[in-house]
Amino acid sequence: MSDKLIIFDTTLRDGEQSPGAAMSKDEKVLIAKQLERLRVDVIEAGFAAASQGDFDAIKAVATQVKDSIVCSLSRANDKDISRAAEALAPAARKRIHTFIATSPLHMEKKLRMSADQVWEQARQAVRFARQFTDDVEFSPEDGSRSDMDFLCRVLETVIDEGATTINFADTVGYAVPELYGNMLKSLRERIPNSDKAIWSVHCHNDLGMAVANSLAGVKIGGARQVECTINGLGERAGNTALEEIVMAVRTRKDYFDLEVGVDTTQLVPASKLVTQITGFPVQPNKSVVGANAFAHASGIHQDGVLKARDTYEIMRAEDVGWAANKIVLGKLSGRNAFKQRLHELGVMLDSEAGMDAAFVRFKELADRKAEIFDEDIMALVADEQHAHKREHFRFVSLSQHSETGGRPSAKVAVSVDGKEIVCEGTGNGPVDAIVNAIEGHVASGAELLLFSVNAITTGTQSQGEVTMRLAKSGRIVNGVGADLDIVVASAKAYLSALNKLHANAEKLNPQL
Amino acid sequence: MSDKLIIFDTTLRDGEQSPGAAMSKDEKVLIAKQLERLRVDVIEAGFAAASQGDFDAIKAVATQVKDSIVCSLSRANDKDISRAAEALAPAARKRIHTFIATSPLHMEKKLRMSADQVWEQARQAVRFARQFTDDVEFSPEDGSRSDMDFLCRVLETVIDEGATTINFADTVGYAVPELYGNMLKSLRERIPNSDKAIWSVHCHNDLGMAVANSLAGVKIGGARQVECTINGLGERAGNTALEEIVMAVRTRKDYFDLEVGVDTTQLVPASKLVTQITGFPVQPNKSVVGANAFAHASGIHQDGVLKARDTYEIMRAEDVGWAANKIVLGKLSGRNAFKQRLHELGVMLDSEAGMDAAFVRFKELADRKAEIFDEDIMALVADEQHAHKREHFRFVSLSQHSETGGRPSAKVAVSVDGKEIVCEGTGNGPVDAIVNAIEGHVASGAELLLFSVNAITTGTQSQGEVTMRLAKSGRIVNGVGADLDIVVASAKAYLSALNKLHANAEKLNPQL
Repeated sequence: MSDKLIIFDTTLRDGEQSPGAAMSKDEKVLIAKQLERLRVDVIEAGFAAASQGDFDAIKAVATQVKDSIVCSLSRANDKDISRAAEALAPAARKRIHTFIATSPLHMEKKLRMSADQVWEQARQAVRFARQFTDDVEFSPEDGSRSDMDFLCRVLETVIDEGATTINFADTVGYAVPELYGNMLKSLRERIPNSDKAIWSVHCHNDLGMAVANSLAGVKIGGARQVECTINGLGERAGNTALEEIVMAVRTRKDYFDLEVGVDTTQLVPASKLVTQITGFPVQPNKSVVGANAFAHASGIHQDGVLKARDTYEIMRAEDVGWAANKIVLGKLSGRNAFKQRLHELGVMLDSEAGMDAAFVRFKELADRKAEIFDEDIMALVADEQHAHKREHFRFVSLSQHSETGGRPSAKVAVSVDGKEIVCEGTGNGPVDAIVNAIEGHVASGAELLLFSVNAITTGTQSQGEVTMRLAKSGRIVNGVGADLDIVVASAKAYLSALNKLHANAEKLNPQL
Repeated sequence: MSDKLIIFDTTLRDGEQSPGAAMSKDEKVLIAKQLERLRVDVIEAGFAAASQGDFDAIKAVATQVKDSIVCSLSRANDKDISRAAEALAPAARKRIHTFIATSPLHMEKKLRMSADQVWEQARQAVRFARQFTDDVEFSPEDGSRSDMDFLCRVLETVIDEGATTINFADTVGYAVPELYGNMLKSLRERIPNSDKAIWSVHCHNDLGMAVANSLAGVKIGGARQVECTINGLGERAGNTALEEIVMAVRTRKDYFDLEVGVDTTQLVPASKLVTQITGFPVQPNKSVVGANAFAHASGIHQDGVLKARDTYEIMRAEDVGWAANKIVLGKLSGRNAFKQRLHELGVMLDSEAGMDAAFVRFKELADRKAEIFDEDIMALVADEQHAHKREHFRFVSLSQHSETGGRPSAKVAVSVDGKEIVCEGTGNGPVDAIVNAIEGHVASGAELLLFSVNAITTGTQSQGEVTMRLAKSGRIVNGVGADLDIVVASAKAYLSALNKLHANAEKLNPQL
């Protein structure tokens, strides 16, 4: 029988560390539910000690996810580990993932500790973590630039203390497949008790080889866990893309001979959900989940060259969850049908009041748009969940006008902490006019780093989803807004970003 | 001394085959000039026999490019090869790239030829091509699924006939690095005259491993040419990304020990230009050229963990052409300054009248926007070149209004074949209203597949660039429009897509 390859998703931890990809607790739960539907083995939900928000989100994920193991990252100290254990307490199956740097540079400059001190702290951390769960992962940070003798000593010790997974990270994305695979192989050969742990790979994509490096770690190095994220989300050039790992191992089973437990038909829905929540688009020529990844998914008939489908296709679009958009609901759909569909999509609304509000919005949308797709429902719910939070700034209404030769103008009504204000402004276009109108009152002084619009489904009847990324005092936030009218969506996105800036949320970002 | 790795760019041929990425002659010349500035060794400018448009574009590129070798693809027959030679005639240095399928499936089903016939045709094609140039490349299509004995026989023969480059393609993106590298190695070992040709790799990214496969072909297989595209543009999941190959070989010189002639500081400008022309965005977490690829490029200060830049960065943003946007021109800039900047950007306008028209537009833009960036100039010129063509549909003016509670309405003036019409419409938002207004008159019946907006530079004063992808009767076209007002940009994009649908341009798309 083939070995199993464990899929460890860190979209909610390492992926979330991308500047602008910060997620709320509710957003994390939505993604976690989709990851569970995808049947990933382990969900790293955050870094409990990083912030109260992270702690709450891990706790919420641990409460709602039943099938996947839920994991929290923690530094190698009792305080962090206790905090992780506390957040994970409700989980059906939990893992504590602890790490400490082992490279000379990091030990000296960052930790200001001797090698012996680091060894002792790693040992104690794993021992302490084992008090809370018998599923403990250990990562030597900057491992690939550590002294090999020292690394062997540390890893042998933490395995003795009960670490069940050892994760070898290429933190800076510097590896090439052959060398990375052989480094892992040599570690496993040199460490006497290496067979007592499952070995894991964690690669970054700076040179475009994260997937190949991870798979060399598996094939040459004998790793049986891959750490990855949906869409390859992550800092800089991102992490290893989950969808590429899963489809490579599956498509080339002849070579890898490994089992993967993932339900591949949930890959595209997972990709879309992460895009929707983070506002990070997927380029069309992205493997597996890009809009062009399968030519025929967009209904294109290739010319005569394409005689047989198998001639040019190594995967089937339907196997990864590409399907023609399905009209799921319409004007005549009732509350039960709506509720049922939300349930199927894994969406939990906090209360009956929340459900009522969402249903009202659904009917409003159905009045304006004949065909309601899953993507529309998800956008509507995301919007509703924001509104539900009694956020500081809330969109009420707008009117705007533009005409060639004149300067576009807009009037926006905004509820600020429950009090409605009306602001007016002009600009180079309707969106600029709206931003100027709002800034005239709010004076946030934030800098607009990114503005993008994507249609949620195809066709002119599609809703536009606007992402605006603002920066202020070194903090970066993403605001997302959806509406049939992209000018309205832009106003919502801007207010959503202002709300995130308003809710101060400093947190620690470890580099793994 | 290290060997040189030849960079063969096929953005204009294989990249252009992506549904929706079709480029005009002028757009191809703009990109070719940037590729020359990037100092790529070979520019594959198209497939001369595919269409008159392709032929003209190759000829224009061959006329304007002086430093790089200009190449045309051609099937293995005299007619295609003559056509390629004719298009390439003005080139300072030219290459003919001929191909024929060698796999049993393709020979039987597509070509309906015996192996001997294919062998003979390959031989004759290379011999014929050598009459026009002594730089001839041969590709066995679907080579990786061909019988190895037959492949050795064909390749030995074409090298004897004077093929100077042999390109081994992973057409369907099925390869894994170790196997692909070893297959190439074995070919080179078995073919007696293999040292008389330079070996080349051409990989597709379906499993996310195109870069690693190409580099395994180089490291294990001994290839000294990599075929690649800017941004990894290409059908399905795309081709090998040029910028990733170049930076991997450069960053890991310790491992690859190869020289690359590319001026890496031109990578980001090349990426932006290709995005601007094709409307295919680059995701932020894309290696090298993604907006987040270098954390500090966006001005982010990492937390205390980041003590030293070298600790977490393996490349420098400035080395690949990331620089703070530079204000290059403003309201007070004169015609000479504008002309000089166009020259530096490698933009050639057809005539003085074209230059005059572009300068008028520049002054208009400078009146509305205080800071003019290179990206603005490129957008303006692209726009001007479209307008200059006396296209069928041309944007004249619009006025639009929307108000919460009411239905958005728009009035658009469009010049149709020189005659101005005014159309009115309503919709779910201003963009929908405009599309409905135009469709009310034009009745193209095209389906909108994609709508996206990206800001050309950061800041609220940025121009929006709108891409609309339309499908009709199996053809897919991209329209792009830029303006400070995204509603205006949307109208321009829609009309630009309609123009492309109007200009019928059927062409052949080979699968390499």
